[in-house]
Amino acid sequence: MKGFFIVFEGIDGAGKTTQARLLAAALTRRGHPVVLTREPGGTPVGEKIRSLLLDPILAGLNPLAEALLYAGARAELVARTIRPALARGRVVISDRFVDSSLAYQGYGRCLDLKELEQLNALATGRLVANLTVLLDMPAAGALARLAGRADRIERERLEFFDRVRQGYLQLVKRAPERYLVLDGRLDCQELHRQILKAVEERL
Amino acid sequence: MKGFFIVFEGIDGAGKTTQARLLAAALTRRGHPVVLTREPGGTPVGEKIRSLLLDPILAGLNPLAEALLYAGARAELVARTIRPALARGRVVISDRFVDSSLAYQGYGRCLDLKELEQLNALATGRLVANLTVLLDMPAAGALARLAGRADRIERERLEFFDRVRQGYLQLVKRAPERYLVLDGRLDCQELHRQILKAVEERL
Repeated sequence: MKGFFIVFEGIDGAGKTTQARLLAAALTRRGHPVVLTREPGGTPVGEKIRSLLLDPILAGLNPLAEALLYAGARAELVARTIRPALARGRVVISDRFVDSSLAYQGYGRCLDLKELEQLNALATGRLVANLTVLLDMPAAGALARLAGRADRIERERLEFFDRVRQGYLQLVKRAPERYLVLDGRLDCQELHRQILKAVEERL
Repeated sequence: MKGFFIVFEGIDGAGKTTQARLLAAALTRRGHPVVLTREPGGTPVGEKIRSLLLDPILAGLNPLAEALLYAGARAELVARTIRPALARGRVVISDRFVDSSLAYQGYGRCLDLKELEQLNALATGRLVANLTVLLDMPAAGALARLAGRADRIERERLEFFDRVRQGYLQLVKRAPERYLVLDGRLDCQELHRQILKAVEERL
């Protein structure tokens, strides 16, 4: 692999999408050939699966089926977009990757972590990001951003996102050298500056 | 599990759907509580995935992603429909199950059979049918039924379906006691008679 693979992770509302876009724009301005993608999505199949997963009919989808659908979208994204781009020397930036499944379906929905890892090893052919930027922040703050008002958040949702957050932090502990963990509550431009600096050091 | 789980397998055009329906109707007339389902499909999620997999945009979907999507639909069907029905003592009849993935994605698309088996063990919680009816027939004949005219079949398609057919026969060899293999070219009513007899012996 000649390219460089950067993944943004964190709970909903932590600012991943914004920071992924800012980083892609900044690297492009500096002359790096960038491919920006997102999960689920990023390919025609992935976007179909994305709209399937967001369909209200799927509320209550069992967590295992959910994990398998995400893995299917991921397999297509890796085969169709990420691996070819890395082989051509591109910087690939993905808004979410395998860690999202481990944090959400594993820590959040309590699926067996080892089974999830085997499933994702199969789906990705064991592709691992060169750098994963984890935007960490308390669940209440992230959900408040999403909802606009903190008092609309139900307790169950808060507990779920807190499990997901703690899951991400556990993943970092297992391989800290692969991660850049930043406080998602920092000012957007300040976060961007720190991410860009860390990426440029590694490129 | 108090119920009885019957699966129909075979290449496209072999007559599975017709025979599954005839069997369901005959067992219902005899007073057995029957749940008839199909794969992919059988649940709101499964039917969404079915229409996704049949979408022309997915032509050329990579085989691994395809296998994962089928496994996702299967996990939902097992959790939502098949296991609850078996637990209530129903006779569950499914038009396709795990063997379809092994035959189509494994033998047909040349994915690693062992990985596919692990994936499906995860998706189904190792649920195995009590009886699998394999409707076997040469690929050319089955495709001719589907196409209406034999000369419209491309060579590649014929070779693919022949690999799938041979795959099914390999699966039978590994556990013959689980299968009833019948010649799909037999008369529809004659097939039905033989299937019903075999099922009634086991119920």
